[in-house]
Amino acid sequence: MAAIQTTTPSQDVISMLQDKANQLRIDSIESTTAAGSGHPTTCASCAEIMSALFFSVMRYDPKNPRNPHNDAFVLSKGHAAPILYAAWSEAGLFPRQELLNLRKFDSDLEGHPTPRLPFVDVATGSLGQGACAAVGIALNAKYLDKSDQRVYVLLGDGETAEGSVWEAAHAGSYYKLDNLCATVDVNRLGQSQPTMDQHNMEAHRARWAAFGWNAIVVDGHDVHALLDAYRQAEETRDKPTVVLARTLKGKGIPGEEDKNGFHGKALDKKDAEAAVASIRKSIHGNGAKWSPRMPSGGASTQTPSQPTGQFPAPPYTPGKDEVPTRRAFGTALAELGKADPRIVVFDGDVENSTYTEDFQKACPDRFFEMFIAEQNMVGAAMGISAHGRIPFASTFACFISRAYDFVRMAAIGDNNIKLVGTHAGVSIGEDGPSQMGLEDLAMMTAQPDITVLYPSDATSTWIATKLAAEIKGPVYIRTGRPKNPVVYKADEKFEVGRSKTLRQSDSDRLVIVTAGVTLFEALKAYDQLKSEGMNVRVVDLFSVQPIDRDGLIAAARAASGRVLTVEDHYAHGGVGDAVLSALSDQRLVAEKLAVRRIPHSGTPDELLEKYGISADHIVEAARRLAKS
Amino acid sequence: MAAIQTTTPSQDVISMLQDKANQLRIDSIESTTAAGSGHPTTCASCAEIMSALFFSVMRYDPKNPRNPHNDAFVLSKGHAAPILYAAWSEAGLFPRQELLNLRKFDSDLEGHPTPRLPFVDVATGSLGQGACAAVGIALNAKYLDKSDQRVYVLLGDGETAEGSVWEAAHAGSYYKLDNLCATVDVNRLGQSQPTMDQHNMEAHRARWAAFGWNAIVVDGHDVHALLDAYRQAEETRDKPTVVLARTLKGKGIPGEEDKNGFHGKALDKKDAEAAVASIRKSIHGNGAKWSPRMPSGGASTQTPSQPTGQFPAPPYTPGKDEVPTRRAFGTALAELGKADPRIVVFDGDVENSTYTEDFQKACPDRFFEMFIAEQNMVGAAMGISAHGRIPFASTFACFISRAYDFVRMAAIGDNNIKLVGTHAGVSIGEDGPSQMGLEDLAMMTAQPDITVLYPSDATSTWIATKLAAEIKGPVYIRTGRPKNPVVYKADEKFEVGRSKTLRQSDSDRLVIVTAGVTLFEALKAYDQLKSEGMNVRVVDLFSVQPIDRDGLIAAARAASGRVLTVEDHYAHGGVGDAVLSALSDQRLVAEKLAVRRIPHSGTPDELLEKYGISADHIVEAARRLAKS
Repeated sequence: MAAIQTTTPSQDVISMLQDKANQLRIDSIESTTAAGSGHPTTCASCAEIMSALFFSVMRYDPKNPRNPHNDAFVLSKGHAAPILYAAWSEAGLFPRQELLNLRKFDSDLEGHPTPRLPFVDVATGSLGQGACAAVGIALNAKYLDKSDQRVYVLLGDGETAEGSVWEAAHAGSYYKLDNLCATVDVNRLGQSQPTMDQHNMEAHRARWAAFGWNAIVVDGHDVHALLDAYRQAEETRDKPTVVLARTLKGKGIPGEEDKNGFHGKALDKKDAEAAVASIRKSIHGNGAKWSPRMPSGGASTQTPSQPTGQFPAPPYTPGKDEVPTRRAFGTALAELGKADPRIVVFDGDVENSTYTEDFQKACPDRFFEMFIAEQNMVGAAMGISAHGRIPFASTFACFISRAYDFVRMAAIGDNNIKLVGTHAGVSIGEDGPSQMGLEDLAMMTAQPDITVLYPSDATSTWIATKLAAEIKGPVYIRTGRPKNPVVYKADEKFEVGRSKTLRQSDSDRLVIVTAGVTLFEALKAYDQLKSEGMNVRVVDLFSVQPIDRDGLIAAARAASGRVLTVEDHYAHGGVGDAVLSALSDQRLVAEKLAVRRIPHSGTPDELLEKYGISADHIVEAARRLAKS
Repeated sequence: MAAIQTTTPSQDVISMLQDKANQLRIDSIESTTAAGSGHPTTCASCAEIMSALFFSVMRYDPKNPRNPHNDAFVLSKGHAAPILYAAWSEAGLFPRQELLNLRKFDSDLEGHPTPRLPFVDVATGSLGQGACAAVGIALNAKYLDKSDQRVYVLLGDGETAEGSVWEAAHAGSYYKLDNLCATVDVNRLGQSQPTMDQHNMEAHRARWAAFGWNAIVVDGHDVHALLDAYRQAEETRDKPTVVLARTLKGKGIPGEEDKNGFHGKALDKKDAEAAVASIRKSIHGNGAKWSPRMPSGGASTQTPSQPTGQFPAPPYTPGKDEVPTRRAFGTALAELGKADPRIVVFDGDVENSTYTEDFQKACPDRFFEMFIAEQNMVGAAMGISAHGRIPFASTFACFISRAYDFVRMAAIGDNNIKLVGTHAGVSIGEDGPSQMGLEDLAMMTAQPDITVLYPSDATSTWIATKLAAEIKGPVYIRTGRPKNPVVYKADEKFEVGRSKTLRQSDSDRLVIVTAGVTLFEALKAYDQLKSEGMNVRVVDLFSVQPIDRDGLIAAARAASGRVLTVEDHYAHGGVGDAVLSALSDQRLVAEKLAVRRIPHSGTPDELLEKYGISADHIVEAARRLAKS
């Protein structure tokens, strides 16, 4: 571990930090006033916290925010973005003048931070997510890199109403993350009114302590007290620390300090000038000169940057093996883990259903049980992905909906996370609708930059798992519960954005586009239709986003523009809509078979039939469509 | 308040309850074995808890589970469904024989409980939601009905890793819900492995106590101890109680008790028979005869069942007023609240942005601040909707994604909730992508039974608010941040499933279908195109789900099948896809204008332009499309 600062900070240092805090306040006011919007009072409350962290506590290279040895900082209260930008400017990364471009289209100093900026790991601005990301970064530092990197995260007090914060808190203590230090800026006021606990610091302390954290209450405007708390945090072993900083919202801004009604309101020019003049009086300029506390780098292990082994070819034999796609995912993931030390796996207490237990057995050090807390699972994946790891996070497809806001933010941040949903659709059977993922494709394809793969058999799932690891950015793979035949040979090539045509002739009356369990229903329907003398084309979509527009256009044109889509998913936002959208200019006549009602418990075959996506329904729809 | 049971229960009663617990165990084993799947060990751990609650503690009419005076029970650990069904059967609601239809398609005894059953308020099976629903029911009983109804909720211990549980816990103590009593079945084992805290009862106790609950630790197989704890709960004022019951998973099942590896596994026939025989030995049949503890009904106020006043006509003047749709929603909601005592409003600390503060001022007793905890906000709405109230829950559209799993379950349960998302799209401007709702239509339309309205001006928003209250079932309304002109007169009729044609001629080259802020861009484009000599039709979609298929077909046919859709939403799952899907058999040539990249901060007008949905882009696309 790094040397701990045990010496009492000199008055010079305290003066310097207090001056810098006030400078950050001024910068936050001036930048939001220039923008005409933003959250100056939210910045003002945490000025001493930011000053203490950035100019005394944290070890980082101010000229290279991406230095992997830097201590990490996550601004969970993302609306305090102006003070984050001010801190990096004050540290010397860019000129102060740039702060005045806040919130402009051609500046990356956006309203809330995004990883377009080199000092931002995850986009924040949806509260309660930064703590989860910090857990992921801290897991990496402590257990994988085994480095001396420390992880700091700053939350608001209103933000701690979000359950995801307590998911992170629970995981943080379970994993004994003594390299993790949260600060809560307890400024008493939310957007519209006081928080539930206001300045009841004991209520805050009791909650964090009960979740197993070393909880320290301080006056958040007292730089000395803050430094002392951060020193205690560094000294604490086997548990994370939270610094609960009692602060005043709008601190230093005349007429706004600790007053409700000033959330998210930039000062007008006149008020801003008066506030700045007032705050400037507190800057004495007689403190120490700041010099960065550079990261040691010495004890750190560099995160691996490439595979160290070979990922084997898919082991399945067409026409012989019957394998659930979730099972193939688990087997492939274990092989991927053996071949690539960057792969890390998170699961939500369902690894014996998602089969990530195979990875857990193969690479136990890189498997993290995140228990039944899907938000923190995805948030931790987002965090760790920013530190060189390739995280796969998996659970039942339906439960990824629990973390949809995190998925949304991962898309905004272009985080390199891989999500895998198992148990898609009504074909799970008896467990009933609460366990059926029927909106996962809609959720995922709605986000413009998420790659969405929907493999149908074990071989294509195997390849999809590898593709997911290779693609930079967020990826979702949809897998199913039931056993399916293997249709592809081991050397079949799959690409993102390319479909596979499994049946075709020169006289196809229509094309059936599908994926997953319904592909096998389509193949049965093909046989039935063929026996009746009707040729149809069968396309395995495989890649829902991006979609194989050229391949689909060719298929549709060869079938007189008649397209039938089939999916074990609700009718909106899935395979059918993706196909219709890709072919919107093709003057199609198309029909979607999909689950159009809330389903019920039953056997898988019964449910495919009752909800209109079985081979019989496909045959019937094909006959109907061929006549149109 | 009801008379509290202060007498010590007799040995007769204890014997009866212990016998019933074992009978519930037997029923759970037999029904899951008959089904061939299910969670018998999860049921076995909570048998004494269920027996104590159903046959001693709770006051309810066993022949009428919908009696509004009944104490409420929510099975948050929904996979214990078999024991819930067994308890109602044991109470006499239906014959024991029916339990053997568990998980069959033609029985409503599904794998996890849904409100298809009269004794279920909210569908469970996604963990951590029942506690939130219970908060909503308890708020209604304590503050609105002012009844003596008590609310019981049973959670699993693994489930308490879900952050939503702590959102509910925080709200429960903030609102001093002394009519709320949670029980945690601490059976130590999750699905795949032991929970984080296993049998560390002190860790459990400390957390709940820190969240302000009266926390009681008991042996969960000791009926006497359970009754004592529930009595203490009834006596406790101004805070909710949690009974932390230490139990053994699989209790009573030979070879499975407190052992990992038996989650969600039905016993085979032979093992089931042996287990039943073993448990039956513990049934002595010498206890008291059970008679239901009927609800008093006396002190209860019946929930109102209809409006008591008149909802006024929209107050806006076309061509004069400029009003944001979120603002019109807030004003209309306040009027609705005055006219209808069933209306209840929840907000997530943004009521000065969503304008539900207007309702708060008009009807303060029926406004509940749920702070920054969207999961609990929606869950509480689900719960209260099952008790005769019509809840509106609102926040920024993007943050409803935080509660998407709750929305999913509300759709499964057909809960009568009204969700309103404000700040839709890039047109919010400078705050940046984290605050922009760009996937809300995709989320909502994916659920088959959610009505989705997207009004464009203040008048149609006003009417949409009223329609939402009138429709039975979940409704979503999308509103925007910027001011828009008013286009509709106060007496314009709007219906769910009907669009409005705002511009048309006999020579329309194409039809533009849109809604929200982009409607005004389309109207500008119309003027431009008209000045160039091109007539286009402009349709305000209004109702995204259900969609006006007939109206759209007529419009498309009148425009040679050329359709241009425009929306301030991501490209998948929104207005465009809804239109393409409705017209899939119309041999269209269509183009979607939508936000196709992760947006950036900027001014609203700048962002409409940069992301391709401004009037200029519409003009350009229309020219292109007209040539095709």
